[in-house]
Amino acid sequence: MTADSRPASLSDETIQALSHKIMDACAALACHTEVEGEINRPFLCATTRQVHAYLTRWADALGMTTSIDAVGNLRSRLAGPTPDAPTLYLGSHLDTVPNAGAYDGILGVVMGYAMLEAVRSLQEEGGQPLPYAVEVVGFSEEEGVRYGVPFIGSRALVGTVDAMLELRDAAGQSVRDAIRDYGLNVDEIGEAQFRGRALGYFEIHAEQGPVLQDAGVSLGVVEGIAGQNRVILEFMGQASHAGTTPMNLRRDALAAAARFAVAAEDLARATPGLVATVGVMQARPGAINVIPGEAYCTLDIRHARDEVRLKAFEQLLNTANAAAVERGVTVTITHKMEEQATPMSDAFKALLHRAATAEGLPHPELVSGAGHDAMVMAAHMRAAMLFVRSPNALSHHPDELVLEEDVADALRLGVRFLHLLAAENA
Amino acid sequence: MTADSRPASLSDETIQALSHKIMDACAALACHTEVEGEINRPFLCATTRQVHAYLTRWADALGMTTSIDAVGNLRSRLAGPTPDAPTLYLGSHLDTVPNAGAYDGILGVVMGYAMLEAVRSLQEEGGQPLPYAVEVVGFSEEEGVRYGVPFIGSRALVGTVDAMLELRDAAGQSVRDAIRDYGLNVDEIGEAQFRGRALGYFEIHAEQGPVLQDAGVSLGVVEGIAGQNRVILEFMGQASHAGTTPMNLRRDALAAAARFAVAAEDLARATPGLVATVGVMQARPGAINVIPGEAYCTLDIRHARDEVRLKAFEQLLNTANAAAVERGVTVTITHKMEEQATPMSDAFKALLHRAATAEGLPHPELVSGAGHDAMVMAAHMRAAMLFVRSPNALSHHPDELVLEEDVADALRLGVRFLHLLAAENA
Repeated sequence: MTADSRPASLSDETIQALSHKIMDACAALACHTEVEGEINRPFLCATTRQVHAYLTRWADALGMTTSIDAVGNLRSRLAGPTPDAPTLYLGSHLDTVPNAGAYDGILGVVMGYAMLEAVRSLQEEGGQPLPYAVEVVGFSEEEGVRYGVPFIGSRALVGTVDAMLELRDAAGQSVRDAIRDYGLNVDEIGEAQFRGRALGYFEIHAEQGPVLQDAGVSLGVVEGIAGQNRVILEFMGQASHAGTTPMNLRRDALAAAARFAVAAEDLARATPGLVATVGVMQARPGAINVIPGEAYCTLDIRHARDEVRLKAFEQLLNTANAAAVERGVTVTITHKMEEQATPMSDAFKALLHRAATAEGLPHPELVSGAGHDAMVMAAHMRAAMLFVRSPNALSHHPDELVLEEDVADALRLGVRFLHLLAAENA
Repeated sequence: MTADSRPASLSDETIQALSHKIMDACAALACHTEVEGEINRPFLCATTRQVHAYLTRWADALGMTTSIDAVGNLRSRLAGPTPDAPTLYLGSHLDTVPNAGAYDGILGVVMGYAMLEAVRSLQEEGGQPLPYAVEVVGFSEEEGVRYGVPFIGSRALVGTVDAMLELRDAAGQSVRDAIRDYGLNVDEIGEAQFRGRALGYFEIHAEQGPVLQDAGVSLGVVEGIAGQNRVILEFMGQASHAGTTPMNLRRDALAAAARFAVAAEDLARATPGLVATVGVMQARPGAINVIPGEAYCTLDIRHARDEVRLKAFEQLLNTANAAAVERGVTVTITHKMEEQATPMSDAFKALLHRAATAEGLPHPELVSGAGHDAMVMAAHMRAAMLFVRSPNALSHHPDELVLEEDVADALRLGVRFLHLLAAENA
């Protein structure tokens, strides 16, 4: 297997069998939970061990070497042809939010093993081994549930986790405590950092949104991970009588806030790729016959390109100010979060598009509005993500879904990607 | 005193002395309260007796006959020249909201006595007696605090109170119980109804809003009492992820509600005399990164002309529906209140304008956005109201204010009104 023009082809039977195995694995792993009757697996919880054991058996069968690093990442390594061969990282996360679905994160880890099983089956039919090492990573923490800050797992892999070790959970336990209590050695955290030449990172993940479902396609290539700003806006005017105060003498805080909410929707609708959400809105004192003297609302704004987001953000804050000033209202803006956009690797995206074309699959690009481990990895190596359709757009919800036929498409595309990357690195 | 062209004129000294007496009376009566440290005088509370005693002494000095009717209205009658002379009713209410100001209601009752004292002082200087009887009424209940429905006092005077007798307060006591416990005889309620020919009803009241203050004038002639509708709107969409749901695939309930709030303000600003208020607004689930699946808001809309209000109301409900439909959101509208507008008597308004002109006072018309006893009286006789500037626009508040010089203007205008009415009925 050396030429892009004569790619390896998986048989339909292999694809079907492996897709079925992926779905089975997701279902089986969903049973390992801290809360009976729902899927709930926070960072370094006890049932993490059962997930690790299940996946380690799979890795063993593929001749991989598996270890748990000092933050609890599961790392299964398939050696390359030589000790100095570069490494491709495949994976996603194994932790969940409370009352989660069965696919968020874990699908990408399971598919890492499944892709390598597919590669092995092609080798058994005469295909070449991959000219690089592959490490499948099941990150121990991505959701940020326990410590309020996400990506403990991937940050350890890239060597930027130290600042997080003293974070404390609701019970007062630090990350350091959690690591020790699980039986790991926090002093070995430096060894979790990746070494040698990294080819890059490739993550398959459920979309968690309606875009692919709406487009009627199974897969999408992630263009980038959106940057975002989150702010709280407090409008202060003057409460007064709804009957005796004419319109021109009002200082209606809610009227200003409602203008702002409408402007946010209008601007996002008019700006391709921009999403802007007013998720909280409350008028005070909140009586049917009293003009609101105060209004409290929020803005969450995201775009794949920082310059687009920041321009829109500034424009909306100006609108909030203007709407307030016009009404004799003041507005106080509190910045809660700012994250830069993370573009995905152009080279990896190009390979994903070529792979999709070779497999005859539609391959639209879409933005990830949510954060992923790929954000952390992208600062240190080429990174790419493939989204699998969420048929009901639900995620972080027990009804979260992916379709087996979409998983089959993702598997074909992923394996083709591995081979195209092999051709480039042969 | 027979001719409009040669009106009686009060001396500056008399005006000053009476204005001062009015302010003193309001201050003195504010001390009769159920709650130490604030003004609080609900329907038929014990301290009502002290208010009645104070005002009865004043009436006695003017040669008036005072009684308490079966719902507790204080009624001081100055006889006309003949037993069949028609009666002019002057007054306002003596009850208060909790933690009230010193002028809402009581100012109009006190000014009833003060106007008659002024008339008497003119008589002592050779002026003619009034050719009609005058009854100063201190209504026992206008605010609706105790039974949730206002105007028990004025409804008894016009004979429409019977349906309210079984209403119960928070302690389970009925209006009937309250009347009996105060020592009145509910069986005599029929006798509270006015008899004989009524010339009309004239009420002086603090504006309770900012219009006269903004216009820089002391007084305003009430054009009419606004009709109003109050509704609750519940928008139901679909909560979803603020990052992964593109604008075109959202069912954002708050976005629809915010459009509605903006439309209400826009329409009211563009429609002279219309006030529209969204006093309550709440998004659910109410998280910074979740598109609101539900939004709850209210509308309070008022105008002096029913056709203007109803047209605007219908237009806004259509806007709410359109904003919902466009977003795949449903809206449920619950009607909470509908009150028709109450125009004031054209004949009485004309007399007030003539009186103001004669006294050299500016006399703009303005709408009363709040309800008053004059609404009840207007269904049975000519009714008019004169508003006195509220310098800080506050009412139902301990800082409620009227200025003594504005009270002086109101006294001059009111006395002139009595004499113009006398000339008409001589």
